[in-house]
Amino acid sequence: MSLTDRTVPTDVALNTDLYELTMAQGFWESGLMDAQGCFNVFFRDNPFNGGYAIACGIGQIAELVENLRFDEESIAYLAGIQAPGGGPLFKQGFLDYLRTFRMHVDVWAIPEGDLVFPREPMVRVQGPVIECQLLETALLNLVNFQTLVATKASRVVRAAEGHPVSDFGLRRAQGPDGGLAVARASYIGGCTSTSNVLAGKIYDIPVFGTHAHSWVMAFPTELEAFRAFAKSSPKNCCLLLDTYDVHQGIRNAITVGKEMEARGERLAAIRIDSGDLAKLSKETRAAFDEAGLPYVKISVSNDLEEYTIQSLFAQGAPIDSFGVGTKLATCDPQPSLGGVYKLSATRSADDEAWRPVMKLSEQVYKRTIPGIQQILRFEDASGCPVGDMIVDEASDTGDRTAMVDIIDPVTMHRLAGATPRELLVPIVSDGVRAGEPNTILEAKARCKDALMRLDPATKRFLNPQIYPVGLERGLADLRQRLALEELGA
Amino acid sequence: MSLTDRTVPTDVALNTDLYELTMAQGFWESGLMDAQGCFNVFFRDNPFNGGYAIACGIGQIAELVENLRFDEESIAYLAGIQAPGGGPLFKQGFLDYLRTFRMHVDVWAIPEGDLVFPREPMVRVQGPVIECQLLETALLNLVNFQTLVATKASRVVRAAEGHPVSDFGLRRAQGPDGGLAVARASYIGGCTSTSNVLAGKIYDIPVFGTHAHSWVMAFPTELEAFRAFAKSSPKNCCLLLDTYDVHQGIRNAITVGKEMEARGERLAAIRIDSGDLAKLSKETRAAFDEAGLPYVKISVSNDLEEYTIQSLFAQGAPIDSFGVGTKLATCDPQPSLGGVYKLSATRSADDEAWRPVMKLSEQVYKRTIPGIQQILRFEDASGCPVGDMIVDEASDTGDRTAMVDIIDPVTMHRLAGATPRELLVPIVSDGVRAGEPNTILEAKARCKDALMRLDPATKRFLNPQIYPVGLERGLADLRQRLALEELGA
Repeated sequence: MSLTDRTVPTDVALNTDLYELTMAQGFWESGLMDAQGCFNVFFRDNPFNGGYAIACGIGQIAELVENLRFDEESIAYLAGIQAPGGGPLFKQGFLDYLRTFRMHVDVWAIPEGDLVFPREPMVRVQGPVIECQLLETALLNLVNFQTLVATKASRVVRAAEGHPVSDFGLRRAQGPDGGLAVARASYIGGCTSTSNVLAGKIYDIPVFGTHAHSWVMAFPTELEAFRAFAKSSPKNCCLLLDTYDVHQGIRNAITVGKEMEARGERLAAIRIDSGDLAKLSKETRAAFDEAGLPYVKISVSNDLEEYTIQSLFAQGAPIDSFGVGTKLATCDPQPSLGGVYKLSATRSADDEAWRPVMKLSEQVYKRTIPGIQQILRFEDASGCPVGDMIVDEASDTGDRTAMVDIIDPVTMHRLAGATPRELLVPIVSDGVRAGEPNTILEAKARCKDALMRLDPATKRFLNPQIYPVGLERGLADLRQRLALEELGA
Repeated sequence: MSLTDRTVPTDVALNTDLYELTMAQGFWESGLMDAQGCFNVFFRDNPFNGGYAIACGIGQIAELVENLRFDEESIAYLAGIQAPGGGPLFKQGFLDYLRTFRMHVDVWAIPEGDLVFPREPMVRVQGPVIECQLLETALLNLVNFQTLVATKASRVVRAAEGHPVSDFGLRRAQGPDGGLAVARASYIGGCTSTSNVLAGKIYDIPVFGTHAHSWVMAFPTELEAFRAFAKSSPKNCCLLLDTYDVHQGIRNAITVGKEMEARGERLAAIRIDSGDLAKLSKETRAAFDEAGLPYVKISVSNDLEEYTIQSLFAQGAPIDSFGVGTKLATCDPQPSLGGVYKLSATRSADDEAWRPVMKLSEQVYKRTIPGIQQILRFEDASGCPVGDMIVDEASDTGDRTAMVDIIDPVTMHRLAGATPRELLVPIVSDGVRAGEPNTILEAKARCKDALMRLDPATKRFLNPQIYPVGLERGLADLRQRLALEELGA
């Protein structure tokens, strides 16, 4: 059913950066086994110069946490790693600790498919620092890319204005998992199907596909190839027109369409995969209409993304469906989200309360937000989001009428009439899944609903309006105080 | 030992686009089970506006071919897929055929790690068309991305001018496989290590890593954090300086470095992960030299790629090693190679000889090269490549003194004095690995050697000279003739 149990049954714990393990050994050796930490996954900028992102990958976190164990083969590998200065990198006692390791963390997350904005804790992990650290890389590996793809897919699907979009990206993805992640996240983001058969099997996503140019080339003539395909797939026959010459392809497809009609069948669709898709789709539509085959749908592919699809419709292209591959699977032109995992609070065995911490850095935008954070999403009477407030448990003043960084009176007025909803919900408790898992279909529905309610000004591709996200007043004060303290001011 | 047997033990055959299976059923139903095909994997443009690419992923093809079987669970899934028009998409007889399916194809490929240029058949697959088709997607999924990453890595490594580069990209890769592919291909392309522990285990790649900002934040002060890490990792201590303020970080690291000296240990290195790396690395170098710790190495990271590394050295930054993550793992700014798999010849049961075929398309650059192709790499007396000639078995005139499309007298003169080497070698015969597998270290050495021998004008990043690749005269004539025939001229 999921990425983790299918692909890395025994060595999921090694799907990590070495420094997580050297740090874990450090915590073990420093007697900091009881030290607790709170880590947040967040990104700093919306992808694709857009106004939002879709939280994705969340549905697979619980399984990752539950399965993060070290088997004997993994321990043996770690025991053999030599330090650059000579001698084993890991001590026997630490390896013994890993041998019986299991996660005890608690995890909160934005429900999969919901909107997420920069700086917001998309996933919050609390528990022994040593465990939180061992989860970091695999967690980022899971949510970074899927959030990016779901967001890309939602853009492509919106550009397609209700016409079906199928994921065709497997051949350009990063191995089998990459293809699976693309299919899963793009389905949640709004695609209607995938060409990826394994994704269909594992995630129960509708699969779609027709034939390639090689089918046509394997026969003596295009007409023979079309006839053979119609015979083999009478109920879902989609003919690819551009192997040799599209106009000849149109004539041959019409011939076969007429032959199918004579047998009481219907040619379902044709596909064009190269050339000027606007011009060719118009010529194709006209030819099929004139031939009395107005029901034959037109499908196109060839390096499509949201902007080319917008352009095709702006040119009046009569296209019924899209296959989108390379630029979806690689999230061109922004192939990474840049999501990070940062410590925001610590607590030692002696502490009663969490100690909020923040990272500074010369680059001001890299400064983190401290505390045990929750996101409040303010929604108006019709359920449309008007602004998000990040709140820290301990420093919360309870004031819901003002957010720091958000000062325009229009937003403040809208917030005043809206109801806050706590966005982060528990998904893992003491290392075990909390509650029933959401299905992919639920995540897909949530995404569709959330996008429908989002202000069109925030959704548009060109210069989207920035969705208001601010800090609760107490958290803003705390952050200012910590920054001054850490800088020794 | 490899991607395929580790991650998709039972359902590797479903890691494919649906249309491969609908076409396979079509061939089965059309009685074309004996029809033979020759398919080539190639790309149309060098990635990153560069002058070359590094063939990668080749070493895992044989295992993919040997393991491409359909288990009962996969068959059951396929049996349940409904056609859009209703009823099962796949017929029982075809599913029975899949039940006992195994590959009988022959595969030739450029040795892993060697140079490859646009339009050249990087991998050539011959066998029953139905089998070739079922291999397409998984094969592209394997070689497309790894070739791209190996090429990107080779560029980053060349920019680093001999200083070690470590792959840090796992958290931005497309799932566990993505991270493994990045680690494997970037090691072949020239990286010295990876942060990815699983890649270290599976591929025997050296692993590397130190600590994160969270380590520092988990302690009351930076100095305590540095002391604890030095104690835990005395032989490979690398301290991260930029959690709060780099200058304070330098002072604390010097304190700890001095304390280590007093214990007879040595602080190995420091790392800077944000801010102005040129300025900060110079200040760090000066401070450590002045403190009598000139042996402490400087390592940097933070969204690096070939151009930022070049710029750092152009500014005189005294950097000893690099961690390169996001832009390596996602091959920013070109996240896909665009490699395709095209039919170039067919042969029916009755044919004595192969029938060359080509795809046309309105876009002239999408026209393919027909025939059973071999690449001849011409090398001068010192083994440096001077040009590649694509030759078709059947149409070969034997003339090695001229190539079509390559007409400049300098190239022709160099070719005349060079020796041709057949680049494609058999790696699979009748569905089974041919010969001993190359190790990753052999591929890495081959890559290093090939790049060393390549003309610097072709290797440079800015406006590289185009490496001469042409068609043998007989093949060029054949291609011209086929194009005219197919256009009905």
